[in-house]
Amino acid sequence: MIQLTRRTILTGAAAATTIAAVRQPAHAAAPPTGKQAPGFYRYKLGEYEITVVTDGVNRFKLPDNFVTNVKREDVNAALAAAYLEPDMMAVPYSPIVVNTGSRLIVIDTGTGEANFAQSKGAAGQFQANLAAAGIDAKAVDTVIISHYHGDHVNGLLRADNTLAFPNAEILVPAVEHKFWMDDGEMSRAPAGRMEGLFKNNRRVFSGEVVKRLKTYDAGKEIAPGITAIATYGHTPGHSSHVIASGERKLYVQADVTNVPFLFARNPGWHLVFDQDAKMAEETRRKVYDMVAAEKMLIQGFHYPFPAVGHIEKDGNGYRVISVPWNPVI
Amino acid sequence: MIQLTRRTILTGAAAATTIAAVRQPAHAAAPPTGKQAPGFYRYKLGEYEITVVTDGVNRFKLPDNFVTNVKREDVNAALAAAYLEPDMMAVPYSPIVVNTGSRLIVIDTGTGEANFAQSKGAAGQFQANLAAAGIDAKAVDTVIISHYHGDHVNGLLRADNTLAFPNAEILVPAVEHKFWMDDGEMSRAPAGRMEGLFKNNRRVFSGEVVKRLKTYDAGKEIAPGITAIATYGHTPGHSSHVIASGERKLYVQADVTNVPFLFARNPGWHLVFDQDAKMAEETRRKVYDMVAAEKMLIQGFHYPFPAVGHIEKDGNGYRVISVPWNPVI
Repeated sequence: MIQLTRRTILTGAAAATTIAAVRQPAHAAAPPTGKQAPGFYRYKLGEYEITVVTDGVNRFKLPDNFVTNVKREDVNAALAAAYLEPDMMAVPYSPIVVNTGSRLIVIDTGTGEANFAQSKGAAGQFQANLAAAGIDAKAVDTVIISHYHGDHVNGLLRADNTLAFPNAEILVPAVEHKFWMDDGEMSRAPAGRMEGLFKNNRRVFSGEVVKRLKTYDAGKEIAPGITAIATYGHTPGHSSHVIASGERKLYVQADVTNVPFLFARNPGWHLVFDQDAKMAEETRRKVYDMVAAEKMLIQGFHYPFPAVGHIEKDGNGYRVISVPWNPVI
Repeated sequence: MIQLTRRTILTGAAAATTIAAVRQPAHAAAPPTGKQAPGFYRYKLGEYEITVVTDGVNRFKLPDNFVTNVKREDVNAALAAAYLEPDMMAVPYSPIVVNTGSRLIVIDTGTGEANFAQSKGAAGQFQANLAAAGIDAKAVDTVIISHYHGDHVNGLLRADNTLAFPNAEILVPAVEHKFWMDDGEMSRAPAGRMEGLFKNNRRVFSGEVVKRLKTYDAGKEIAPGITAIATYGHTPGHSSHVIASGERKLYVQADVTNVPFLFARNPGWHLVFDQDAKMAEETRRKVYDMVAAEKMLIQGFHYPFPAVGHIEKDGNGYRVISVPWNPVI
């Protein structure tokens, strides 16, 4: 009774006589919309409401040194294992908004509104998607920054350089802020990317942003139920955050890994943007061992949207088991 | 330099002195929205635009016989491996809309608008999410039905029993239609669920629906680029569909598996709703072996939204590798 063979499946589309061929559509063609759904996703964590708000995805040709300690062919093999195109990278950005019931808190801010035009709409979507999610940027009380890379801090400013969250205090890791504001460190920075980061951070962390700045230390509760964790390596003061509400805990990992299909699967791989790659790897292994053992929910800034799941050990690495999408909250 | 220990991570939230404790929020609390994002997702398949439109998720206590040939503790172990709650089932429904450029085609129709109220909004969302996706139900030319279970056919009718797609022809598998319309088969149906299915199908497939009905045979191209595949077992005429455009192929599996974290991981498990469980298992193994070998994209009606990915073999079963969400198309 089963007529299923590989031949019928693969050649069927070319069948000569079809019922469709003799039928006209009832209507003029509906134009393809070309538009994606609004890029946000909501879930409850205890009493808190978390909204993941995508800033988009940047796509670029895989640079030779994107993973510094393995060959291009190894990276391509990992991309193939994830059913992704070879020699291309697609890096998503997933800031989150935490509504504690009394406070509205943003963690990391995306690549910045100005990047929307530069990336031809691929990224810089955070403000537009926040609005789509019904979140008023003026109502945000607190912005927490994990570390001083452009895709995390540039969204502090609108395209016109005004404050993106005009009524919010801005909480930054003390160690991180000290490093990037240190003139000695800046003077020793290699030309190119590192020099550019120093310059960008001094552009962003000036004027109105600085007036609202408060530094935080690792190990402290920096907002209700939100504790900063020192996860140094990616940058000198790179920090993650654990959000606790009721019986639930969420590990907001920032850049402990970049895209998980490369760096969770292969925790020993070193991302070109890891400032201290050895320390970043140690941090990665510790965090992932802990999150897997505790079966904690994890939110990854560079995970594919909605960027939330659990971690399981798999061979020498880890695998993200995404949380099933919930069409209600 | 790394201060990360399990102790700091797990006890940090209880730290006594916090900067937050001495700070007041800048604003009155923003109320939690309680609202999920609109439930649709778009992608290109060659020249075609596919829109996955969720009908929602039904949650219910795990019945003892949900998987007929393994113990409840085995099912609970599989749920735990997917980081899901024990003794509960959550079954998503993911109809799709195919815009070929000249035709607008719906494949399967969800649990029906009337179910929205019955399920308290958990399911029966298809019409609302279609509208959110900017798709006019009146512009749909063709509805393709995979098989005659309520979650696939009830959405042919609105809550007021009028046609949900008033201008569409309705294509149904000839074998399936014959079975459910056969009075002899109906008279032999056991009381309870099977009897109810016959009654429901005679309710749905009457009046205006029947006037628009056309039956299709497996192995034929039934709409431009869409070929029907006989994947019998789940029901006598259960059909899948392969959509081909340009160089791309998508396998629309309907109910070859129910939720993948149970039945793709364990293809030998028999769902209580599989009418011929042995044939359904044979079909499942053939389809999944083929889709994995061909690295075809697969769309699963009962996969978690957006319900699209690739299949890899893993141990004695299969794993779905979801396609990374694309915030643009």
